[in-house]
Amino acid sequence: MKKIPIIIDCDPGCDDTIALLLAFANDKLDIKGVTVSAGNVNIYNTSENARKLIGVFRREIKVAKGCEKPMFKTIVTAPEVHGESGLGCLILPEKNKKLEELNAVEFLAKTLKESSEKITIVITGPMTNIAVFLIAYPELKEKIEKFVIMGGSSIGGNVTPSAEFNIYVDAEAADIVFKSGVRIILCPLDVTMKAFITEKELEEIKAIGGYASEVAYGAIKNALDFYKEFYNKHEVPMHDPCTIAYLLNKNIFKGKEVFVGVELRGEFTYGETIIDYRNKFFKEKNALSLNEIDRIEFVNMIKVAVTKLKTVV
Amino acid sequence: MKKIPIIIDCDPGCDDTIALLLAFANDKLDIKGVTVSAGNVNIYNTSENARKLIGVFRREIKVAKGCEKPMFKTIVTAPEVHGESGLGCLILPEKNKKLEELNAVEFLAKTLKESSEKITIVITGPMTNIAVFLIAYPELKEKIEKFVIMGGSSIGGNVTPSAEFNIYVDAEAADIVFKSGVRIILCPLDVTMKAFITEKELEEIKAIGGYASEVAYGAIKNALDFYKEFYNKHEVPMHDPCTIAYLLNKNIFKGKEVFVGVELRGEFTYGETIIDYRNKFFKEKNALSLNEIDRIEFVNMIKVAVTKLKTVV
Amino acid sequence: MKKIPIIIDCDPGCDDTIALLLAFANDKLDIKGVTVSAGNVNIYNTSENARKLIGVFRREIKVAKGCEKPMFKTIVTAPEVHGESGLGCLILPEKNKKLEELNAVEFLAKTLKESSEKITIVITGPMTNIAVFLIAYPELKEKIEKFVIMGGSSIGGNVTPSAEFNIYVDAEAADIVFKSGVRIILCPLDVTMKAFITEKELEEIKAIGGYASEVAYGAIKNALDFYKEFYNKHEVPMHDPCTIAYLLNKNIFKGKEVFVGVELRGEFTYGETIIDYRNKFFKEKNALSLNEIDRIEFVNMIKVAVTKLKTVV
Amino acid sequence: MKKIPIIIDCDPGCDDTIALLLAFANDKLDIKGVTVSAGNVNIYNTSENARKLIGVFRREIKVAKGCEKPMFKTIVTAPEVHGESGLGCLILPEKNKKLEELNAVEFLAKTLKESSEKITIVITGPMTNIAVFLIAYPELKEKIEKFVIMGGSSIGGNVTPSAEFNIYVDAEAADIVFKSGVRIILCPLDVTMKAFITEKELEEIKAIGGYASEVAYGAIKNALDFYKEFYNKHEVPMHDPCTIAYLLNKNIFKGKEVFVGVELRGEFTYGETIIDYRNKFFKEKNALSLNEIDRIEFVNMIKVAVTKLKTVV
Repeated sequence: MKKIPIIIDCDPGCDDTIALLLAFANDKLDIKGVTVSAGNVNIYNTSENARKLIGVFRREIKVAKGCEKPMFKTIVTAPEVHGESGLGCLILPEKNKKLEELNAVEFLAKTLKESSEKITIVITGPMTNIAVFLIAYPELKEKIEKFVIMGGSSIGGNVTPSAEFNIYVDAEAADIVFKSGVRIILCPLDVTMKAFITEKELEEIKAIGGYASEVAYGAIKNALDFYKEFYNKHEVPMHDPCTIAYLLNKNIFKGKEVFVGVELRGEFTYGETIIDYRNKFFKEKNALSLNEIDRIEFVNMIKVAVTKLKTVV
Repeated sequence: MKKIPIIIDCDPGCDDTIALLLAFANDKLDIKGVTVSAGNVNIYNTSENARKLIGVFRREIKVAKGCEKPMFKTIVTAPEVHGESGLGCLILPEKNKKLEELNAVEFLAKTLKESSEKITIVITGPMTNIAVFLIAYPELKEKIEKFVIMGGSSIGGNVTPSAEFNIYVDAEAADIVFKSGVRIILCPLDVTMKAFITEKELEEIKAIGGYASEVAYGAIKNALDFYKEFYNKHEVPMHDPCTIAYLLNKNIFKGKEVFVGVELRGEFTYGETIIDYRNKFFKEKNALSLNEIDRIEFVNMIKVAVTKLKTVV
Repeated sequence: MKKIPIIIDCDPGCDDTIALLLAFANDKLDIKGVTVSAGNVNIYNTSENARKLIGVFRREIKVAKGCEKPMFKTIVTAPEVHGESGLGCLILPEKNKKLEELNAVEFLAKTLKESSEKITIVITGPMTNIAVFLIAYPELKEKIEKFVIMGGSSIGGNVTPSAEFNIYVDAEAADIVFKSGVRIILCPLDVTMKAFITEKELEEIKAIGGYASEVAYGAIKNALDFYKEFYNKHEVPMHDPCTIAYLLNKNIFKGKEVFVGVELRGEFTYGETIIDYRNKFFKEKNALSLNEIDRIEFVNMIKVAVTKLKTVV
Repeated sequence: MKKIPIIIDCDPGCDDTIALLLAFANDKLDIKGVTVSAGNVNIYNTSENARKLIGVFRREIKVAKGCEKPMFKTIVTAPEVHGESGLGCLILPEKNKKLEELNAVEFLAKTLKESSEKITIVITGPMTNIAVFLIAYPELKEKIEKFVIMGGSSIGGNVTPSAEFNIYVDAEAADIVFKSGVRIILCPLDVTMKAFITEKELEEIKAIGGYASEVAYGAIKNALDFYKEFYNKHEVPMHDPCTIAYLLNKNIFKGKEVFVGVELRGEFTYGETIIDYRNKFFKEKNALSLNEIDRIEFVNMIKVAVTKLKTVV
């Protein structure tokens, strides 16, 4: 079967890491490269995390550093969830994998320009790199198969009362992406809050053994501890891996074709996504917004990936 | 026991009617007057409905007609829920009860000025009358005990994806009310969506007999039919009566002291209320926002009121 | 000849005072009342100034106190131009003229309701009173002949780089007035900056003698001193009197029918008036905006008024 | 004397053409390249015009095509001033000068990266290229000596009542440039409206002879005809050449250090520049805004340039 060519634009990040492991372990995906955004933590740390993860698990994959700050705003990060380094207490080994000389925007341009087939772009962080790329290289839009995005919410936000983190950090960039005309699969909090992992399941992942299980455990544990402390919950949503899971098996998701708008003007609602499930605005639909997931199957996917990666390291 | 002096500013409207019946039936409340706003239907019909309801059930209560349109916007109504007349198919008898010569703003001013005690104002429609009153008579603010308001939502809207009807119709007026400094008890969709009545309960209300049960049945039936048709539900939320129910027995509610803001600037989010349960904005709290209700007790209150009113007509 | 019935809504204020003197001295005008707004200084002082001026010169004219603050904003005043009292060093005698018991909004309503003829409303301060009146009494709009307004600018502002004071203080009120559909004659800075009085002319006014000349001198001197100190100018614009001058002799003005919009949304441009002389926005024209004046004739009008008032006090 | 290294980002365009001729003729300037923006006309025509002009006059200069549309808005052009082609009736010969393979953003990055000295960037069109460059390559900001920009106005606009064309076309891009922290010399309409050329002076330029005089005449004539027809004027402002003239002899200008803000939020004022000459906003100054010019000397500069270019073609 033909592999799906993808580029992953991410800001690892605890749940980004699980998304990457899920991708690394799967033969279905042809990872043309990873570009790194600033978001969960600053660009230095997200780049280091991406570079090292790839150094350990899939050394041959190219990784390019992206824009250091949002288009208009100053950067907002979330160290309370992801730790200062972005990976909690997890310390990755230095395998001397090098970052590309090209920056993320240049790398996206070069890769798409040289590709004979359309490439899917997975976005699990703020969309600055992608938006800048779209403005600077409008002629390459036709080389993008689709965007699969973790971001947004119609059920309340996690930064402000109504805005989700990835969109809020660079809402102008998100606006450009949502208006690009490229096909969009959206994984908003609507679905990712249902894509949680329980404490018990996390222990099962740990029990698999191998370095990947250590990495997965470390990354998830940090976020879980945050959820325990602040929300008194014994489970933690795995936002970013939903994107890769969708590519691997879209049958475990349900969703609806909708108009998604990004609020740029509000006094209180900057960065809110309007996911118009009931078509109140009569606007042209620009995304498939996912809102249901077969959680058991999703968690199983992660376990399978961790198991498979035992053979790598 | 001392009665609670109140003025009810409403736009009947199906659920406003239930709120009025609940108030009419209770000795605990000293209803100083009813002022009418445009909202569910236009000012002519809401005034007619209020005037006739009072003519039937509590002829001695004064009723004053209010502003015909919102402060800045053109009026938006909801005949699809409330019928063209505002009361579905219900036809009230003409008892020749007269509207006050004073308009709602003048009536509010006169009543508060002449009152030796503070008066609670219940608001179950768009807040145009109240906002204009607050601007024109700032010195009378101290005569207001508190506002008990049906409006707003943190769980998605019913006009736009994020805005609730009463706030959306005149968001600028709502903004003035929320910034007034007067104590506010808010009944947003968060609680009113839990304050539903089932088809079966509606039949029980009908079975009570008496004219009040006919009125209650007629008013609720109309909204229920809408919910059946559009949402395939066999229950219908009783938004407005939550305000009166709170005054009668606040113990059946739970809520939280919060900051509530009204979005006036958004491209997609105009009229959205931000109910900052998790204090993300670090703003001064200006309302008690209710989000839980003992529904059985609430429905029981309505039944008791309808039963009591049998002795009136 | 039939007199022109007018109500003057003002915030005296140095140049408001000259506007009032101009009106007081003229038989052409039938002054139905003066309503007072907060603006140049706070409502207490503007009311006191209006009340005392009327007490001295035209005791029979009714005067009603208005709203104490703008519709949405906190009040901004200009004591640097008008002095703390609003009249610089001028101290008016106490003639025990009383304020109406009705507030400005109530007075406007009563006066227009009872009038058999249409009344022109002159506005020389922020428009809070008028806007609240328009919302609360839409049915009385038809009793207004026209608004003659001092406010706005297309040539740069005097509070912010682009906003003129009267509009900026309560831009939402101004927006309501400009959208009311009532005929508007606008005297923006475009014309009022050309309606200046020179130091020499001020001395000529002083030389006329009589108490009115003292008042005029005192009021103008204060503003002139400000212009000397801050702009090194030996002349001072007489903004507000342009409105009355227009009513007395519109032939000394030139203007253009235009669309005027009020900016409520801008980050830097809140309160700016857009006077679309070149019809760039293709919007319906809602005002005659004056931009030329026969200055010599205008100053002469003021002199004639001051001379005439010698016979009064 | 050391030459001033510059890159010119322009959208020729009639007055851009004069700016280019002025630059081409002067040994003081070391033109590292020309990047082309969409603006006066679409990107195809502005690129063609730049490419051909360089082909004729300074074949060795590199020229790179830029972004085809603004960051967020759809493109607005001004064919009524510049003709459909951007150069009125002027038809330039095809000299087979090639556009760079790199696009404008890439060219800016490469040129600045490889330069051992800081480079001045002259901007005479909408700032899309520059803004995208600044976001994608923040680390290269330090290689920019300063921006010399034609854009903005504090004296009314030429697209909307308050917005100037270059800023209005891509106000978000302008906002990024003004907030970049890079030194800015601004030539707003405040100065460029004083930098006009009269019909007589245009004839004198024609009389100089040589191909450059033909080009200058053709380019200016088109804009002059527009000014004649629409404003009944026999002179036409030379906006863009002010930037180059400033670099050649800043002594013919006067200006003031100010804060310049770009309005992105206004309903009527989108794209307006706030040039805070009187420091009303107490914001950090970010530009030297020019508002006076020695016009005679300026026109002379153009004549000298045209004369000098006689030796080239």
